[in-house]
Amino acid sequence: MPATFADRLTARMEALQTRVVVGIDPDLARIRRIPRFAEAPVEEALAGFSIAILEACAPFACAVKPQSAFFEAWGLEGLRALARVCAAARERGVPVILDAKRGDIGSTSAAYARLLAPDGPLGGVDAMTVNPYLGSDSVEPFLEVCREHGTGLFVLAKTSNKSASELQDLRLEDGRRVCEAVSDLVRGWGEGLLGACGRSSIGAVVGATQPDDLLLLRERMPEAIWLLPGVGAQGADVSLLGPAFGADGLGAIVSSSRGVLYAWEKAAPDAPESFAACAADAARALRAEVEGARRGPGDR
Amino acid sequence: MPATFADRLTARMEALQTRVVVGIDPDLARIRRIPRFAEAPVEEALAGFSIAILEACAPFACAVKPQSAFFEAWGLEGLRALARVCAAARERGVPVILDAKRGDIGSTSAAYARLLAPDGPLGGVDAMTVNPYLGSDSVEPFLEVCREHGTGLFVLAKTSNKSASELQDLRLEDGRRVCEAVSDLVRGWGEGLLGACGRSSIGAVVGATQPDDLLLLRERMPEAIWLLPGVGAQGADVSLLGPAFGADGLGAIVSSSRGVLYAWEKAAPDAPESFAACAADAARALRAEVEGARRGPGDR
Repeated sequence: MPATFADRLTARMEALQTRVVVGIDPDLARIRRIPRFAEAPVEEALAGFSIAILEACAPFACAVKPQSAFFEAWGLEGLRALARVCAAARERGVPVILDAKRGDIGSTSAAYARLLAPDGPLGGVDAMTVNPYLGSDSVEPFLEVCREHGTGLFVLAKTSNKSASELQDLRLEDGRRVCEAVSDLVRGWGEGLLGACGRSSIGAVVGATQPDDLLLLRERMPEAIWLLPGVGAQGADVSLLGPAFGADGLGAIVSSSRGVLYAWEKAAPDAPESFAACAADAARALRAEVEGARRGPGDR
Repeated sequence: MPATFADRLTARMEALQTRVVVGIDPDLARIRRIPRFAEAPVEEALAGFSIAILEACAPFACAVKPQSAFFEAWGLEGLRALARVCAAARERGVPVILDAKRGDIGSTSAAYARLLAPDGPLGGVDAMTVNPYLGSDSVEPFLEVCREHGTGLFVLAKTSNKSASELQDLRLEDGRRVCEAVSDLVRGWGEGLLGACGRSSIGAVVGATQPDDLLLLRERMPEAIWLLPGVGAQGADVSLLGPAFGADGLGAIVSSSRGVLYAWEKAAPDAPESFAACAADAARALRAEVEGARRGPGDR
């Protein structure tokens, strides 16, 4: 297995010709409408649904991204389900990006960094999202695990939600915006973690919802792999994402959660048991759309 | 029970004449040096230690602040221990501030907000720390739970760690620093949640390590109750915290974790079984110090 997260991820991107990340945000109320999960215990409903999605979508996914909140909300049952989803992805060789957005003072971040580690409570994940608001000493314990275990991070730079601009787009007196200052930090954090692929294992979250940012931020983070949320339920236009991928085509991965997970609600509202097939169709379609955007109009 | 978090917290501050918050950061390696926990199962060590601290320190504590990371790091056992600590605090009427620093896009923050709710996985806590980097729509789901259940928030404005300044002190072109822009947001978020005590249930985290900020930020958040971390292991000078408390003396609470929890390591290194008594002594001493700083030199 390649030693760095960047190398493992990019190898899968090239092998499967996909930049799609399937976000696993299991919403119990929606899952309950699928007959086989209607009466299932919470753990079973969350894990059963998520693992069925993982299996169906794996051929089109360079990674899966379980959203910790949707598991944590259900306490012990949720946490057991999350550990099962991570194990199922490991068995299938699908990289796991834990979307947990942690960040705290150093001694506390060191405790959170166990979520990433192979001997941690999840049995190890490949990468994790982190929040940069506390600065370098809050990120360093995560970097340490990345150096030791070949894992990766995606640091929030510019998020996909409407209110992101309230802080992230504030203009500094030196001319940068806050998200650009974060991007400069991300570049520094990633310097020691370049893979053989030329990309760093320290990536960034950059919302697909603001295409103008893609060119502006790329200059500041040339080696970072970006995780682009915001397509699907949040409405970002995939055709505008071209600049994110870079000349090597390895610069970005595109995450969709609700648009894939609950595709059956639109595609087959009367056949909820077809949820996994509908999700696979949605992931396959998104892959084609993203590959089109990546290669540009002349190359389709 | 008073309907708002601000009222419950300030009532206890006045009844016990204390502004001390005991942070519960159970570090398993250190706890293992206490004979009764040396061989205990993880859950028992984390919960047994934490609850003994809670019981010993309750008379001097306006609240306890379990740090989620130190429980999450141990998976299911950790989560069971955290739920037990929260239940033990509820039984004793000690407000619980869950230090989890969550923040995500709205649909995800709604899932995290279940951590606060009475029917959530922890059986309800009184308040929670949140990260503001994603802006208003990421905080709104937490505010909703606060309005419905009378809980509170402490929003990270200026943290106590060294690297805090990397982002939080950046100067904007309008003259404010980033932490001041966050403070302005906090004020807005707290407006609908004023208690009868005159304080809002939407507070802020302001590091005790930068006393100059206390006066500067107070103007921007007159109604917020501040959670001040950084005394004890992080070295903040309690005697400089006076300006944080405001004319009513209810404007701030002072958190100490390692300085209280592990007081036995300095006070009684040969008698680790006295850890709870040493913690109580440290909490009592901190209370005296904080009350002194609050009342000012002429009032001691």
